[in-house]
Amino acid sequence: MKIGELGEIGIIKIFQEEFSSLPHIILGLKTPTGIYEDTGVIDLKDGNVLIVTTDLIGKKTHMPPEMTPRQMGRKSVIVNISDLAAMGAKPLGLVMSIGLPSDLDAEDLKEIAIGMNQAAEEYETCVFGGDTNMTDDVILAGTAIGIIKKEDLLTRHSAKPGDIVAVTGYLGSSAAGLQILMQNLAVSPEIKKKLTKYTLEPKAQLKIAMELSKIKGITASGDITDGLAWELHKVAAASGCGIKIEEIKLPTLQETKKVSKEFDLDLLELIMHIGEDFELILTINPKKWEKVQEISKKNNIKISQIGHVTDKKNEVTMLDKNGNLINLKKKGYDQFLTRS
Amino acid sequence: MKIGELGEIGIIKIFQEEFSSLPHIILGLKTPTGIYEDTGVIDLKDGNVLIVTTDLIGKKTHMPPEMTPRQMGRKSVIVNISDLAAMGAKPLGLVMSIGLPSDLDAEDLKEIAIGMNQAAEEYETCVFGGDTNMTDDVILAGTAIGIIKKEDLLTRHSAKPGDIVAVTGYLGSSAAGLQILMQNLAVSPEIKKKLTKYTLEPKAQLKIAMELSKIKGITASGDITDGLAWELHKVAAASGCGIKIEEIKLPTLQETKKVSKEFDLDLLELIMHIGEDFELILTINPKKWEKVQEISKKNNIKISQIGHVTDKKNEVTMLDKNGNLINLKKKGYDQFLTRS
Repeated sequence: MKIGELGEIGIIKIFQEEFSSLPHIILGLKTPTGIYEDTGVIDLKDGNVLIVTTDLIGKKTHMPPEMTPRQMGRKSVIVNISDLAAMGAKPLGLVMSIGLPSDLDAEDLKEIAIGMNQAAEEYETCVFGGDTNMTDDVILAGTAIGIIKKEDLLTRHSAKPGDIVAVTGYLGSSAAGLQILMQNLAVSPEIKKKLTKYTLEPKAQLKIAMELSKIKGITASGDITDGLAWELHKVAAASGCGIKIEEIKLPTLQETKKVSKEFDLDLLELIMHIGEDFELILTINPKKWEKVQEISKKNNIKISQIGHVTDKKNEVTMLDKNGNLINLKKKGYDQFLTRS
Repeated sequence: MKIGELGEIGIIKIFQEEFSSLPHIILGLKTPTGIYEDTGVIDLKDGNVLIVTTDLIGKKTHMPPEMTPRQMGRKSVIVNISDLAAMGAKPLGLVMSIGLPSDLDAEDLKEIAIGMNQAAEEYETCVFGGDTNMTDDVILAGTAIGIIKKEDLLTRHSAKPGDIVAVTGYLGSSAAGLQILMQNLAVSPEIKKKLTKYTLEPKAQLKIAMELSKIKGITASGDITDGLAWELHKVAAASGCGIKIEEIKLPTLQETKKVSKEFDLDLLELIMHIGEDFELILTINPKKWEKVQEISKKNNIKISQIGHVTDKKNEVTMLDKNGNLINLKKKGYDQFLTRS
């Protein structure tokens, strides 16, 4: 059997079966809900926990051809910062394992470095170490380390029935931008610039997440990098609950709607199963909704209620715009299944 | 200019120029001696420091064809544990960014996972998280996190003139094993098995390093993965001193000597510029030499004096077996220069 037939979940299962763990690892591949998180968490036993997350991107398999070396460098940092943001953690720094083909231009490498550094500075952190190795393709494998008080840690496993389900920002923007690039859609320069910026130069919701972690009302948090449906299912499974959302409440940019309408793109497919939005999915104790809105306003980042948590275990549904209740498929963007 | 012409040092220089740092990073790409270390060090401000190290290995570019998937998995852990060992740090755990081609056999992936886990268990730690991505080649980018009391941290920058220069174990074994594999040398099965084990299933000197870190007499420490000459130069440059060693004192296995003689391999080249020995180079306050020997005996790991630290800044010399003093070239194994 080839791993392309297993998909990412089958692949992770192999590691889960073979790996062992230790008691100071409070979230990880082997802990009950660790599989639903993008990071591992180490208990430092002094009231703080350490968040460790790693993400690898390869030029050939992960980057649209239009992405510049600077944007690649930037993205290799952002994907990891976004995982820290999902937990509300403050970054301590990043290290980078970098694979490079020997015929890469030095100028391109400099651009990659500039992109990494700019992204790190944007989140008040730095890339402080790493390793370079010769590989066939450009490979940027970043690891970010974050720290947070144990009591403030945001996870995906504490959502309760009745909690508000909300997202930051707008959904589908990055996926729409990707379609513009991949299908070379004839959109206006303004729309192209606006939407592809989400694809090529994503931002992580770190600052607002660090503030939200302190209000003790965020019961679950994750970043929406693999599509909303998949992220909702992860929260539901980790928390042992259900989620019901409403299609008309999904926040999308006018531009995204326009492009999807004009070029007959399935907007729901983009939002649910392509993703890469680098926004946060949150479940919130209703008593803290007002406080959340205050933080939203202060940071000038929209936080929209899209539904609520139910007691129907693992049932993730959406009331669509025609009034029908549909089941959202437990399907995310799976690069192995998609491309194999 | 292609990066293959720059070599690893030129590549690192690009990152050093572009990156910024922050005060809590006490060893890193931008700190005065950080460039000589394989790890970054974060001050946790509670008396402890966090060691973060990352290493990427690719199947096509870093593994002899004889290396099994299990051995690959093992090695991806060992290279990182060895970097923690060099600092005397206790591992808290590892995360793995894994790139996989979709036509890889699931059975091979399982073997990679087993190898990783066995290696982690051997050093009383675990792989607790990671990320899998589709790539052309098998890429294993591990990051290890370690912790140590700030006062116990071993670095390369505190060697003093008069200190003893010593190494653990035997030198050249791994490089000799690699030649046996690459040139398919007609050696006896016993010798092949013994030497290639160093190449295919290296061990890190973690336990003894953790003990040595507590005696307050190890003034510099590093692992010898890029050849002894290179590692000596790093210690000399980081500490602002010189080093003089003696060829006849270099500890080598009988088998290594035999193979190098029979097949006309340049033993000094193997030791000095190929390396991958995963042994430690140490500089030791002479007053603590006896204590070091005690620890050596207790752990059943040979620690041999090979020379001493001098006050001749950056001068790294060797008294060869003919009584000539030669300069050891500041040259390590550089995969970019070698293979480009």
